Amino acid sequence: MSERPTVRVDVAERRTVRVDLAERGYDIVIGERLLETAEDVLAPVVAGRRTVVVTDAVVRDSHLPRLAQALERLDIRWDTVTIPVGEGAKSFRDLEALLERLLDLGIDRSTVLVAFGGGVVGDVAGFAAALFMRGIDLVQIPTTLMSQVDSAVGGKNAINTRHGKNLVGTFHQPRIVLNDVSVLESLPRRELLSGYGEIVKCGLIRGEREFGWLEEHAPALLAFDSGPLIEAVRMGCETKARIVTADERDRGDRALVNLGHTFAHAVETEAGHGALPHGEAVAAGLAAAAALSARLGHCEPSIVHRLRSHLRNAGLPDRIAALASNRHWNSGAILGHMSHDKKTVAGRVHFVLLRGIGAPFVDGSVPPNAVLEVLDNECRRG
Amino acid sequence: MSERPTVRVDVAERRTVRVDLAERGYDIVIGERLLETAEDVLAPVVAGRRTVVVTDAVVRDSHLPRLAQALERLDIRWDTVTIPVGEGAKSFRDLEALLERLLDLGIDRSTVLVAFGGGVVGDVAGFAAALFMRGIDLVQIPTTLMSQVDSAVGGKNAINTRHGKNLVGTFHQPRIVLNDVSVLESLPRRELLSGYGEIVKCGLIRGEREFGWLEEHAPALLAFDSGPLIEAVRMGCETKARIVTADERDRGDRALVNLGHTFAHAVETEAGHGALPHGEAVAAGLAAAAALSARLGHCEPSIVHRLRSHLRNAGLPDRIAALASNRHWNSGAILGHMSHDKKTVAGRVHFVLLRGIGAPFVDGSVPPNAVLEVLDNECRRG
Repeated sequence: MSERPTVRVDVAERRTVRVDLAERGYDIVIGERLLETAEDVLAPVVAGRRTVVVTDAVVRDSHLPRLAQALERLDIRWDTVTIPVGEGAKSFRDLEALLERLLDLGIDRSTVLVAFGGGVVGDVAGFAAALFMRGIDLVQIPTTLMSQVDSAVGGKNAINTRHGKNLVGTFHQPRIVLNDVSVLESLPRRELLSGYGEIVKCGLIRGEREFGWLEEHAPALLAFDSGPLIEAVRMGCETKARIVTADERDRGDRALVNLGHTFAHAVETEAGHGALPHGEAVAAGLAAAAALSARLGHCEPSIVHRLRSHLRNAGLPDRIAALASNRHWNSGAILGHMSHDKKTVAGRVHFVLLRGIGAPFVDGSVPPNAVLEVLDNECRRG
Repeated sequence: MSERPTVRVDVAERRTVRVDLAERGYDIVIGERLLETAEDVLAPVVAGRRTVVVTDAVVRDSHLPRLAQALERLDIRWDTVTIPVGEGAKSFRDLEALLERLLDLGIDRSTVLVAFGGGVVGDVAGFAAALFMRGIDLVQIPTTLMSQVDSAVGGKNAINTRHGKNLVGTFHQPRIVLNDVSVLESLPRRELLSGYGEIVKCGLIRGEREFGWLEEHAPALLAFDSGPLIEAVRMGCETKARIVTADERDRGDRALVNLGHTFAHAVETEAGHGALPHGEAVAAGLAAAAALSARLGHCEPSIVHRLRSHLRNAGLPDRIAALASNRHWNSGAILGHMSHDKKTVAGRVHFVLLRGIGAPFVDGSVPPNAVLEVLDNECRRG
């Protein structure tokens, strides 16, 4: 163990969001320098139990020493397993390799798996925790803004197949989620902004107060001012938690978290997966969803302008054409990808639209020609 | 469609067992010639929905034409996908191949998967249904006695890894289970007896009335007398259903269904997986569990004698030594395998023991030397 004094952060600086799922309910704890002081948060789950930290080489090298301080103080037996860096690890091959590695370690059903990394680590480790001996306890410690506000909350995990992203997976709720905003300072700017795209989505879902707060505080939180950053992560987690609580298994209203995502997924498919940061596609998708809502007369056009303005000010694309400077986007091709979306049921594409800020709804009967008109405009340069 | 008249069976000849799991609850319907008359049972789940029957080549060739009659009358779009015959299909490779095949078919989340076959088909198809777009509806139509009374009930599925059997899987309850006892007539005698091993286990768990009934009716049901066969399957399903209802996720009392299985799994590991029909290992395991219970003073030795006598009369092994005539069983090796059982938590082997017929309990503190003594005796010839 290290000799240097540990940094203590007052517990009062932490914020907690409860995901209220009865016996599967859990807390999301948000704060600064949580990793090295996490033993009190982790203790109710991991004290006295063997623990395996699943991570990748980048996160291990950047952040594991800090988490290790807390684990060492808990005096438990813990191991680290790494999976490959990047989206390619969301494969059958890497999932199988992780499960075999866990079996090699001789762990049993009382072992706790800690997913320590970005969305890919959360997905693969979460999936493995769901399947290992039909389910062992999982702790999520996401290290990107995107995973802190989105993928680590709600229990979904998945891998990709040659048919598309996230088509194979499970629901497996974590026992606790630790969101340490201090780890975000090491993120590339573009990745931070990508995560902010999901936060903008949450503001639009929630209402005028939340969206207005983001308009005011985006510069500070994107400059790593920890107070606004913690509040933005808290709002994002609370938004996701409320929707997940109402519809854990994604049978209905959970679709609301997909505001912007029908467009985003189609754009990502057209670009080739991994070519764009997800949150940039979401930002352009939010603009398209708002434009479609206005085009169909569901909301005021001023909302579209206000949203585009906020996205631009934050440094995010405000339309599909702003996504990749040298690309010509084909609106027809994007429309075609939508019919293969996982949310498509019996051939109908379901869009999340806006009646206003804070008033999202699902519409399964949008005329394709309206979508194409909007796409034509969103894809047009200048 | 066939021109021959369909055989109609009066619905009154059917028996139904309810698995009472609130919103995941479902019926197990048991009867004769159910396959070709199943449309009324299947309609509430599959009417108007695309359906994929997952089976293997043997079951497809023997029984699919009969099920097809019911599906044709439902006037739905249905496809058949086969997986390889045998335990080898419980692998990552074949699970992945099945999921890719389902994606090739372009099915969506509203599609119903029908697992039509023995335990392997039920496991692989059930696992695929759990993972496909994070879960689609599943119907179990088991075609072996073992799967009708055991593996198709309770929602467990799994595949094997090089570390052992069933170490990777999920819980995914079916929407309905159809047990057509008529398909059992095509089973090899040894496979029928293997399934009967699980029914004996259920009789021991349930009580004097059920065990006594089996002692009286085993000859008739093993000769395919449909009345007693339906009743035995009903009793087996009811036993499993009660235990699953009390502990769906296998946190406690569900362990009672593992009466005899700690011994059976260790014997199967020692023999090499697939070398013995599972139910034969279970029969020998039940005798060993009863002998251990008597050895520890938990039950009367007369129960052990009565159980061995019933197993012999049915044509099942009454001890480990009776399992494979030309093998020398090594009691120390079998004991060693027990410490690797999935049910072993924090190094403790949990045995299901008997205080009497109908009085099973879990004991996590059995002295290893008592187990070894019992194993020495069970492995001894003569």
